[in-house]
Amino acid sequence: MSQQPALELSQRSRWAKDQAISFLMQQAVENRGVISLAAGLVDEASLPVSECRTAMNDLFSDDARARHALQYGTTGGADVLREQLRHHLARLERCSVEQLNLDVKQLVLTTGSQQLLALVADALFDPGDICLVAAPTYFVFLGVLNGVGARAIPIETDARGLNPQALDAELTRLDAAGELPRVKLIYIVSEFENPSGVSIATERRREVVALAKKWSRDHRLFVLDDAAYRELRYDGEARPSLWSFDEARDTVILAQTFSKSFSPGVRVGMGVLPKSLVGPVCDLKGNDDFGSPNLNQHLLATVLASGRYESHVNEVCAAYRLKRDAMLAALDHEFAGVPGVTWLRPEGGLYVWLTLPEEIETGFSSRLFQLATKTHRVMYVPGELCYPAGTAAVRKNQMRLSYGVQDAAGITEGIRRLAAAIRELQT
Amino acid sequence: MSQQPALELSQRSRWAKDQAISFLMQQAVENRGVISLAAGLVDEASLPVSECRTAMNDLFSDDARARHALQYGTTGGADVLREQLRHHLARLERCSVEQLNLDVKQLVLTTGSQQLLALVADALFDPGDICLVAAPTYFVFLGVLNGVGARAIPIETDARGLNPQALDAELTRLDAAGELPRVKLIYIVSEFENPSGVSIATERRREVVALAKKWSRDHRLFVLDDAAYRELRYDGEARPSLWSFDEARDTVILAQTFSKSFSPGVRVGMGVLPKSLVGPVCDLKGNDDFGSPNLNQHLLATVLASGRYESHVNEVCAAYRLKRDAMLAALDHEFAGVPGVTWLRPEGGLYVWLTLPEEIETGFSSRLFQLATKTHRVMYVPGELCYPAGTAAVRKNQMRLSYGVQDAAGITEGIRRLAAAIRELQT
Repeated sequence: MSQQPALELSQRSRWAKDQAISFLMQQAVENRGVISLAAGLVDEASLPVSECRTAMNDLFSDDARARHALQYGTTGGADVLREQLRHHLARLERCSVEQLNLDVKQLVLTTGSQQLLALVADALFDPGDICLVAAPTYFVFLGVLNGVGARAIPIETDARGLNPQALDAELTRLDAAGELPRVKLIYIVSEFENPSGVSIATERRREVVALAKKWSRDHRLFVLDDAAYRELRYDGEARPSLWSFDEARDTVILAQTFSKSFSPGVRVGMGVLPKSLVGPVCDLKGNDDFGSPNLNQHLLATVLASGRYESHVNEVCAAYRLKRDAMLAALDHEFAGVPGVTWLRPEGGLYVWLTLPEEIETGFSSRLFQLATKTHRVMYVPGELCYPAGTAAVRKNQMRLSYGVQDAAGITEGIRRLAAAIRELQT
Repeated sequence: MSQQPALELSQRSRWAKDQAISFLMQQAVENRGVISLAAGLVDEASLPVSECRTAMNDLFSDDARARHALQYGTTGGADVLREQLRHHLARLERCSVEQLNLDVKQLVLTTGSQQLLALVADALFDPGDICLVAAPTYFVFLGVLNGVGARAIPIETDARGLNPQALDAELTRLDAAGELPRVKLIYIVSEFENPSGVSIATERRREVVALAKKWSRDHRLFVLDDAAYRELRYDGEARPSLWSFDEARDTVILAQTFSKSFSPGVRVGMGVLPKSLVGPVCDLKGNDDFGSPNLNQHLLATVLASGRYESHVNEVCAAYRLKRDAMLAALDHEFAGVPGVTWLRPEGGLYVWLTLPEEIETGFSSRLFQLATKTHRVMYVPGELCYPAGTAAVRKNQMRLSYGVQDAAGITEGIRRLAAAIRELQT
């Protein structure tokens, strides 16, 4: 029998291996029947079936528009949607389209905002370059940074989001260490952060943008404002984006998506880019796929033009508000007054961030994770995944709980099971 | 006035810059009104408007299926489509599904086959690694190779496609030079090659696969069988894929797409991967977008299940057959008997490869390109783009002519204008 030749993969491929998300998805497959408070999927009942059906009928009733949608588009995206998105963005920023000060070509349409994050990482990072991230942060983006060999350095956060003083101090330290030339990006999930649920305070947004400009001494230090959950607000007042504080429009990259507010199966994301990055990002995307599906862009443009999008978002928010409240009520019921157990009350998004007593670890190899998934049949995302591995910031006694997929009864039962697993551990 | 901080991009970003495709698209924008025989777009009239409308109605008439399609899918793709594609592939290979010997997980669904090409390049190539390519070859893939810093080495071809003896000789030379460890992939557009229109001869397919296995001495040398145009056959007998000769299913990656045979706006491509590459490719895709749009995959699955796909392909082929014949007739009319002007008669695909007398250069900066685009208002793809830059293989007196977009009258007029430009140059 002949020996198999070895598989020689690229360095990039080795860096992309063993992402936490793969392990989590594997766990989901192996533990069917568990109540998943881990998955970041969206609420099935709120998906826009009738909106899509109507829009498709509209689009396909016009032969010329239908043919346009079924043909190749451009790498940057369909102008009919980009023009709509300028108006959409103006509504979110509560300003006029003129005040946006934004060329339509600066809007690049992607396969979810995930692709935009990956393209920005590819455009900016050489191996060893540095990204400053809120701690905790979106663990899938930590995987993207790993995948390009970049170093993620955690910046302290609190209930008002990333702390600008800590950011300034870290940049001062990096400068003193001669590392400033390697710092390319500050990454912040600005609204109802995945995983913490925190939205960075308005004044801090202004400060972070100012700091990025201040430290753009030799080269441009960009800010990536990941506003994926922006439209899922259930209480309180909307805030202006970090991007809005970048008056010169040369520092902040704004990422948004219609996966959460509309449909992840349609999978249209967008980036609002400083002019200097439009060419580089489109060059990379040209090599990757020369354009996300045109049909989906025309479909979404049809939905936006119909005026049915906003009422759909209102319905989605109403549904998630109930589910968030169900999770908060269940947490209150199970954990109120329990020493060392705390959680944040998110004003939107899909996640509650739970902190347990120091001695209770939550990781994949912890007793709690085993007990929860195997005995009590409930799953969560271990909090330690949300910190850059091997840094002092890592905390092992936290978890991300999502109310995205389960209905209210499932959420209540899931939290009951989780509490039972924690109690079993403590006895 | 303050000085702008410098833009510090990644090495990858610098490699991805200045792709020929960007220049061509720019030319198309700047020269509206020219007859483009350059664009690789598909025939507008043949786009499947009614097929898509019917399939969408079908999909959205079933609430559960519609919700499934509008939710996230998996990184590898929707199983409902992958299962259909196994049957589709068996039909193309003229064997049973069992004979395919293919696990459904080895089918990875991508945003066009372009994304599959990019993922394979990312999985295999470190900077300086080597890809052996037919000369001429698909110039966008040369851009992908540039983008990852790989070296493309041209292998001699003739009217029967890539020459296995030349391939073996090049591998022998590379081995002697100590470069064999850097050789990762052999890339061939196997059916109606973009740009030459040639389909590699059946016996040569077998030989190329055998050579890849023979030279997989220390590590696996893969073959990428880019069969994007496979279903666009207008004459002659279908051939078995290179992939079919890889009985162990461990050497050949088969890339196909529904962009050409169905709709580029739907943009579903697929890769059939050796088991060893499924994990690496999905890990990379997980970071890039964690899955192409689920809706499009469910739409295509609905079309395939309805049986309307095959009749659509027959219509598409009938339309392109007429357009190919129009181009060949026009070439015959303008160039028959002109010394030094030759072209190949393709049995399918979208391209005719035209060779001019040695002294007539066709590149972007050539007099012919200027005359053609500015004076005679016709555009083509310069042939030199289809050879690895700076190699001895480059020929400057060729061009790729596409009959994809224009109707028969446009094709005839386009060739007339091209002939006029060439004649003007010769006088």
